[in-house]
Amino acid sequence: MSQTDLEQLREKVDAVNLQILSLINDRASVIQEIGKIKEKQGMNRYDPLRERHMLNLLKDNNNGPLDQKTVDHIFKEIFKSALDMQEEDTRKTLLV
Amino acid sequence: MSQTDLEQLREKVDAVNLQILSLINDRASVIQEIGKIKEKQGMNRYDPLRERHMLNLLKDNNNGPLDQKTVDHIFKEIFKSALDMQEEDTRKTLLV
Repeated sequence: MSQTDLEQLREKVDAVNLQILSLINDRASVIQEIGKIKEKQGMNRYDPLRERHMLNLLKDNNNGPLDQKTVDHIFKEIFKSALDMQEEDTRKTLLV
Repeated sequence: MSQTDLEQLREKVDAVNLQILSLINDRASVIQEIGKIKEKQGMNRYDPLRERHMLNLLKDNNNGPLDQKTVDHIFKEIFKSALDMQEEDTRKTLLV
């Protein structure tokens, strides 16, 4: 193992980071679309059953090395960020 | 917009979630390799300069809809989870 290996691994991490960035933004766009449908139908944006479904699906597909507790924690932050973003959008709309 | 649209969008979210899951685990594996190299070289695992570099790269490539504060927050959780995982591995090794 040398400094070059370290550099190569870091480049790999940078590339994976950018892929994750792209996906969390794609995800947020779809959540915005879902939010619009729910708004039209007068549905609540936060849906604990749907969140449980998503976490179960992640659990069934988690092959590690991250443990489930960590995966749940990261995804709850991702879920929360999408809801916060929509609330911020609503607030801005109300202010216009 | 109908119930079917909502279902299709939810399926899209489920698919993106699984892609994110796969990538955060891939990332964690690479971080484990980096940790081993650092350990051999007696380097500290936590590297604030490297973290700053990663956050800057994300900032330069963030096209939204998530704002930078949210992206930073999610990634700091991802960075932390990888460090925690390694500390847990070290603790287990010491206990054997």
